[in-house]
This record gives sequence, C-alpha cells and structure tokens, in this order.
Amino acid sequence: MRVALDAMGGDFAPDVTIAGAIEAVSEYDLEVVLVGDERKLTDALAGKRYPSGKISVFHASEVVEMDESPSIALRKKKDSSIRRAVELVRNGKADAAVSAGNSGVAMATSLFLLGKLPNVDRPAIATIMPSLTGFFVLMDAGANVDCKPENLLQFAHMGNAYYKAIFNAPSPRIALLSIGEEDTKGNELTKVAFKYLKNAEMNFTGNIEGKDIFLGDADVIICDGFIGNIVLKVSEGLAETIIKMLKREIAGITTGKLGYLMIKPAIRNFKKRTDYSEYGGAPLLGINGTCIISHGRSSAKAIKNAVKVSAEMAKKKVHEIIAHTLMDSAPQGS
Amino acid sequence: MRVALDAMGGDFAPDVTIAGAIEAVSEYDLEVVLVGDERKLTDALAGKRYPSGKISVFHASEVVEMDESPSIALRKKKDSSIRRAVELVRNGKADAAVSAGNSGVAMATSLFLLGKLPNVDRPAIATIMPSLTGFFVLMDAGANVDCKPENLLQFAHMGNAYYKAIFNAPSPRIALLSIGEEDTKGNELTKVAFKYLKNAEMNFTGNIEGKDIFLGDADVIICDGFIGNIVLKVSEGLAETIIKMLKREIAGITTGKLGYLMIKPAIRNFKKRTDYSEYGGAPLLGINGTCIISHGRSSAKAIKNAVKVSAEMAKKKVHEIIAHTLMDSAPQGS
Repeated sequence: MRVALDAMGGDFAPDVTIAGAIEAVSEYDLEVVLVGDERKLTDALAGKRYPSGKISVFHASEVVEMDESPSIALRKKKDSSIRRAVELVRNGKADAAVSAGNSGVAMATSLFLLGKLPNVDRPAIATIMPSLTGFFVLMDAGANVDCKPENLLQFAHMGNAYYKAIFNAPSPRIALLSIGEEDTKGNELTKVAFKYLKNAEMNFTGNIEGKDIFLGDADVIICDGFIGNIVLKVSEGLAETIIKMLKREIAGITTGKLGYLMIKPAIRNFKKRTDYSEYGGAPLLGINGTCIISHGRSSAKAIKNAVKVSAEMAKKKVHEIIAHTLMDSAPQGS
Repeated sequence: MRVALDAMGGDFAPDVTIAGAIEAVSEYDLEVVLVGDERKLTDALAGKRYPSGKISVFHASEVVEMDESPSIALRKKKDSSIRRAVELVRNGKADAAVSAGNSGVAMATSLFLLGKLPNVDRPAIATIMPSLTGFFVLMDAGANVDCKPENLLQFAHMGNAYYKAIFNAPSPRIALLSIGEEDTKGNELTKVAFKYLKNAEMNFTGNIEGKDIFLGDADVIICDGFIGNIVLKVSEGLAETIIKMLKREIAGITTGKLGYLMIKPAIRNFKKRTDYSEYGGAPLLGINGTCIISHGRSSAKAIKNAVKVSAEMAKKKVHEIIAHTLMDSAPQGS
C-alpha cells in the first residue's frame, strides 16, 4: 500500500510528518509519498535512515493555513499539499491520504476530489475515544452540524462496517447518544433515528446517556456532528482541566512533591492509555476512497499510526464495504 | 423566608432531606416545611435538635418514583410530596420549593402549578459546573430538548439576570456553546442565536468551544437542553472515569500505595472543589416562582445549600427581575 501524506499539514510539520513517515515505513510494509515543498522535504530527508525506496516526495508549492476556510482554500490553493495528496489517491497513484492540517479543508478536499459513495448522503468523521475498558468510536465527530435522522442511520451503518473491518469485531455494539436510555427519550432528531436504528441490520443497543459513554458498553456511538464535536472537545478540555487541577492541589500540600514522584509512573501509564496518538487519526467515512484526518498537534507516533491505519483501511477496502452495506439500508419502520 | 422541601425526593430521602433541613435552619435565617408522610417525618424529627419553630411538617400521602413520567405523575399523584411542596409556593404558604426527586416531574409540576413568567416561552435549567478558576453556569441543562434561536436568547437573558442577582456580578460574561469561536461557526440554531445575542443588552463574549468551557472565561454558557444535558453528563462520567483509571494505574505500580496516601489530601481537596453539593441544585428559571431541582444523589450538605440558595433567590425576587428583563428582550438584528 502507498500512502500520500500531507507533509506540510499540522502544527509541527514538516519535521513531525517526516519523522512519522520514517517510523511508518520502518515498522510496516507500506510506502509513503511525502507531499509538499520538494526542496524542503528532500533536504530534510537527506541523511535520514529508512528502508530505501519506501519514501518518495511529490511536489506541492502551497500550504493551507490552519484558519483558512475550506471554500477559499479549494478555490485558490490548487497546488496545496493537502489537495495534491488527495489527487494522488484520485488518480490511483496512492491508496490513501493522511493529513494533520486544517481538518475542514482536508474534509472538503477529499469530498470534492474523491466524491461520495453511492447511497451516502453525508460523509462523517469517526473518532476514537478512550474508555474504561479500551476505546469507542464516536461519529459524526464534526463533519455535519445539522443532520436528519436518515443521516444518523447512515453514520451507524458506516461506523458498523468500519469497526468490523478494522477491529475484527463480528458484531459491534452500536448506541445512539441521547438524554435517557428509554426509547422515548431524546430530541426530534434522535427519536426518529432511534426507530430507524432499531429496525436496521446491526447490533443496536439503544440510547446511551452522556454519563455512560466512557464505561465501555458501546463500540460505536452515533450523534450529529455538532454534538459530536462538542462531546469530543469537552472531553479533551475536561481531561486537561482535571489533570491541571489535581497537579495544583498536589503541589499545594506538604507531602505532595514526594507523593507525586511515587505515582508519576502511574500518571504516565494513564496518559499512554488515553493518548489519542495511539489511534492516529479519524477517517472520513462515506467518501469514495480512504482519507484520515489527524489532530493538528499530532506527534510522529500519531502520524505513524494514521499512516498504518489508512493503509489497512485501503487494503481491506473499507470504502467498498461501506458502499456495499449502504446498497440496502433505506430507513425502515419510521 | 420559608422553603418547602420535598422531603421524600432523592435517593436517600427522607433521612438526608431531614438532615439537610436541620443544617439549613441551624445555619441560616430561614424556615423549612418538610413535605411528605407526616408520621414518618414527625417520628424522624423526634429527638433531633434544631432551632424551635424553624421546621414544620406538611402532609403528603404519595411519593413520585424516580422513573415515573411527568404526565402520569401530574395526572395521577395529586397528593405527592413534590406537588404539595410546589402548591405551598403557589398558595403563598412558602417562598420557594426544593426537590431532589424525579427532576422531570419536579420541572413539569413547577411549570404546571406556578406557570411561566410573562414573555418567557420556555423555562430552562441553570446548572453550576466547576471550572479551573471557580465555576460557570450552563443553561439549558435539560429542560428543552428542541430549541429555537429565540429560546436561546431568552435563556441568556434569564441566566444573566440570575447570575447578577445571586453572584453579585455586575456584568456576567455570556457565551454561546459552539464548534468554533468565529461568528460563522455553528449549526443552524446557534448561527441565528449568535446574531440575537450580539445585539442583546448583555456582555456577550461570543462563541465558546467545548474544549474551553472549563477555563473560566465565561460565567454563563448557553446551549439547548439536549446538548446541555449531554455536556453535563459527559463531564460527570468522564470525571469519574478519569479518577477510576488513575486509581487503577496507581494501584498497579509498586510505589503506588504509599504515593497515593501522600497525595490523598490533595485528591480530597480536588473533590471538594469540584463537589456539586457546594452549589446545592439547579434552579428552573422562567417560572413564576422559585424552584430548585437537586441531584437525586444529593447529600445533606447539598440539600442545605439548595435550601439556602432557594431562599436567597426568593428574597431577591429573581423571578421578578427575570420578568422585568424579558419585557424588552425581543430578538434584534436577525
């Protein structure tokens, strides 16, 4: 598999994207095409050690900034690294694209160049979040701010297919994020979506409340992209806040310093277990191809993992499985 | 001030509600009417010490269970403790009501018996959440699952008036929960609400993202009740999960036990600082009277604080201030 990596995307590009690419080709059986400023990338690669022939460079003269709007970037930056990376996928020169750059632009570009799969109305982002027992997939995590019940049903089908293929689970537990477990609890959107999901061919386990999402009782949790983004960001913000507050409290007591040293390995283990970089990034599901969007703050390890997962998704043809699944997925029982 | 306390409401009623009532009348200049089974309450009070004449009992023969639906409870349990408590407010026999029972029923009962304030379309729940620097008010925290932009504007006016009165702040910072700071980020609901808020007479500071709500940059954060409930519950669930995971990691290392003992006072301080019971409960704003809804798991301290805050709200006539504020608050600049 060959992965086109937007080498200029992300807060620490291109150093970290190059390092991630080198780690990826060293550890896994895949190739990486670094897309971006040819001279910069070639210079940076010079003297680095990696399996020969596994990394190549594809020139792109422009870089999309983190705060640019998707419509302007698409119209004006036709030679951007993200756009050239996705073009490589469209033209069959690469099997998957990965970008840690401007996520709105990465989404819009993938959608524009690769197109939607048949029967998909709205592609959606599937983000992995840690739970008490492992992790779960939250989707949509931000691609669609206003959704219809039919969209949520499609998200569930796509998440189901993705989870089965990538995590080798025969029957992922799909739940709908709502404000109560009972069928009747929810807003206008989720009440109708609940009926669709109940009648869909999947292991739908019902509504899940916000307080229960981290317990490990669901594999894929479905919501609209506005709520998904807020849940994701609130969780990130709260986790950071709790750690900060705990550190402040520990620093404020006399036995704190020594005690902290003694539990430090545990804090490290906790951070490792909840580290997003283990999962690498979030695929945009529903497009006709494979594209993974990584966090702007991605480390080399996160890039490596995103490259690995994207190659795996391309190899397993997850997008074709999704297209097949959605051939027969019109809402039932509304 | 006299507060009608639903003595039978909550997971640990009536022991904890009675204990909370005794603490409240002992510490503050107010009276409590315990509403519920007269014999049980009188027996439980016998031999307890509290300022004489500050606690009375009002009989109600029925109790609403935690899982009963509001419509059924309203129709069938006319002698329930929550209903009788709110009736005391309606009939001028009490100044405020507090319940830690079924929150949906408490809301519906207050709304049905006390009615909405003029110019209020939808009453909303104002919940207090801890932040890095103190706390903030999130509203609506669950009363209205489907909202119009006009509703969010009213929530902001109500939250503004409440915050000013109860926390003595001249100009609370009001923010709108969204998926980006820019004016243009959001869903259909929040984009229109943003325009209304920008033109409203209040200190509107713009959109706030999920990751920033705990930083202490906003005093009142506005959202619809579906999202508010999910944010509240996700935060509760995540905080518990993080503490559990940290404890598990600490237990898994050799120096963990001793280290934990040394930082334990800090954990206690952290818990105290983020303890919901400090705030007592969440008022339902927009009704013609004062009603505070407390967590089902409320401790005696939480009940005490809810009683105190409800008396303060009644004394400061927060509902009248809200009615006054909303006289001139039609949306501008849509």
